[in-house]
Amino acid sequence: MKPRKVKIVGSGIYLPKQLITSDDMDLKLQVPSGWVLRKSDVRTRHFIQDETAAEMGASAAYGALANAGLTFADIDCIVCTSGTMQQPIPCTAVLIQKAMQQEHSGIPCFDINSTCLSFVTGLDTMSYLIDAGRYRRVLLIATEIASEGINWTDKESASLFGDGAAAVVIERSTDTDSSAILHAAMETYSSGAHLSEIKAGGSLQHAKQHTTTNADNYLFQMNGQAIFRMASKLLPRFVEQLLTKAQLRMADISLVIPHQGSAMAMRLLRKRLDISEEKLLYITPTFGNTIAASIPIGLHEAIRLGKILRGDRIMLLGTSAGLSLGGIVLEY
Amino acid sequence: MKPRKVKIVGSGIYLPKQLITSDDMDLKLQVPSGWVLRKSDVRTRHFIQDETAAEMGASAAYGALANAGLTFADIDCIVCTSGTMQQPIPCTAVLIQKAMQQEHSGIPCFDINSTCLSFVTGLDTMSYLIDAGRYRRVLLIATEIASEGINWTDKESASLFGDGAAAVVIERSTDTDSSAILHAAMETYSSGAHLSEIKAGGSLQHAKQHTTTNADNYLFQMNGQAIFRMASKLLPRFVEQLLTKAQLRMADISLVIPHQGSAMAMRLLRKRLDISEEKLLYITPTFGNTIAASIPIGLHEAIRLGKILRGDRIMLLGTSAGLSLGGIVLEY
Repeated sequence: MKPRKVKIVGSGIYLPKQLITSDDMDLKLQVPSGWVLRKSDVRTRHFIQDETAAEMGASAAYGALANAGLTFADIDCIVCTSGTMQQPIPCTAVLIQKAMQQEHSGIPCFDINSTCLSFVTGLDTMSYLIDAGRYRRVLLIATEIASEGINWTDKESASLFGDGAAAVVIERSTDTDSSAILHAAMETYSSGAHLSEIKAGGSLQHAKQHTTTNADNYLFQMNGQAIFRMASKLLPRFVEQLLTKAQLRMADISLVIPHQGSAMAMRLLRKRLDISEEKLLYITPTFGNTIAASIPIGLHEAIRLGKILRGDRIMLLGTSAGLSLGGIVLEY
Repeated sequence: MKPRKVKIVGSGIYLPKQLITSDDMDLKLQVPSGWVLRKSDVRTRHFIQDETAAEMGASAAYGALANAGLTFADIDCIVCTSGTMQQPIPCTAVLIQKAMQQEHSGIPCFDINSTCLSFVTGLDTMSYLIDAGRYRRVLLIATEIASEGINWTDKESASLFGDGAAAVVIERSTDTDSSAILHAAMETYSSGAHLSEIKAGGSLQHAKQHTTTNADNYLFQMNGQAIFRMASKLLPRFVEQLLTKAQLRMADISLVIPHQGSAMAMRLLRKRLDISEEKLLYITPTFGNTIAASIPIGLHEAIRLGKILRGDRIMLLGTSAGLSLGGIVLEY
């Protein structure tokens, strides 16, 4: 695979109005004080108050444009890379274009979805269109409202999630610029398809069939232990191949920006992949698991805090419902 | 835009077990005999009996592989290009991999969604990854269960839809083979975002909020007249540019395979774009509007019936909720 000359030129995030602490969650979940923090290590997360996913995405997108010193007129394509949708029809990217008040722009809008890996898949996929010159600049936006799908009786998974949005602008790097996607890979093992899921709400069991007795089917459920076992087994070889094909070793990577699935998932990465603590971005305590927004929020925070600089080699890495593994090695 | 060396090497479709005639629909909708046929020109459509979207997609996918003389081992990536989903998590491509009984294969799975244009967007987007050698062969699958989202009190839109699936295998064409995507384009005008929609069932109004009084929000609704006006205004210039950039004229195109939105939409295309009747594939009477499966079902039928031959230049064209316009000019 040839590197693709793609540069991340700006990023932005949006955090919903309600800041929910682990103490608030203890009360909400009716557990002893300190339980949520001890179990999840999520100190704070944001939940929507009156925001829509499109409004959140639009705000993050304008943040990314401002950060890049660009305006909407510089953009050729909007791709929403989220695991949740605002409404079944039309796709969320369309609703973001509208929330950006660019409804007569004609800029193409579509969604790419691989649940928690949607942003990684979107960046990987769209990098080919940027490299080939199809689009000059693409806005990738992950905007997630996890809170609507939480099963509050499953206290452990309920402790993990947060809402949030992140956006990134990508463009082709100039001939003298070494910013590039060096290698990317994805693998899906649907033997794990039902280890984390929302079973109902699509064509299998439509919203109109919702009753008090089947209500749980419409909410998120996961088998954390089984996912952990499957990911432990699959990740080491996946990451090794990713690095080999990028012709790098872990020592060459300045920062790994993982999907913040859970504190347990982070410990797994550190231990099984032998990544030192300072090299693994850990923002679970501040944001929780924000589904596909998790990795671009991490990217934005790492740039903002000066943890990555131009020329650094970084790795985006995660697992998602599927079970899928996804990773990108890029020079920032 | 440089042509992309991409060849459609096989296609397959799946039609659900229940064949519903316009007479059946007259009874179901409690309208006078002949009303559905007169209004919609849809003589037959298929509705699922006990099939899932993933099973339908898997069957179409195996059909496409057999048609191409390939097996699953020849495939590098599965992209589901549908406007409806089987369940909110995980994405439908994962569930198709599982329904294909390839759950340990590791083949990457994700979804691309632009409602009725999902297949066109998927083919356009993935053609860059094929051309660049990222994937040797990609399975694109559109699998749609429209019947679950029909609002039976809106008799006009209820008359239009059918369920169905279609799959296509693409690979890089050899150096001596002229099969290619010559040009592709997409435009989105979200001023039309609410002209056709399913408002509820995502994060804006979750399935758990479903009641007898808001039930219509969870079903499809459209303003056919407003869409018609918007499409009439936008399509002629869009198609003209598509042809100009492909360095072709409509006379060079052997067949236009449009999204079978409705008989009215087909008349609009013929009249406004000056396409002769024999050059515009019209399968609405047999299948109805099968959302994103409509164009690949058309492609499959056109190939099967010998309406397109290797070397022919064809156009895939449609509009979708968004409102989006999408088109591809390719040499088959």
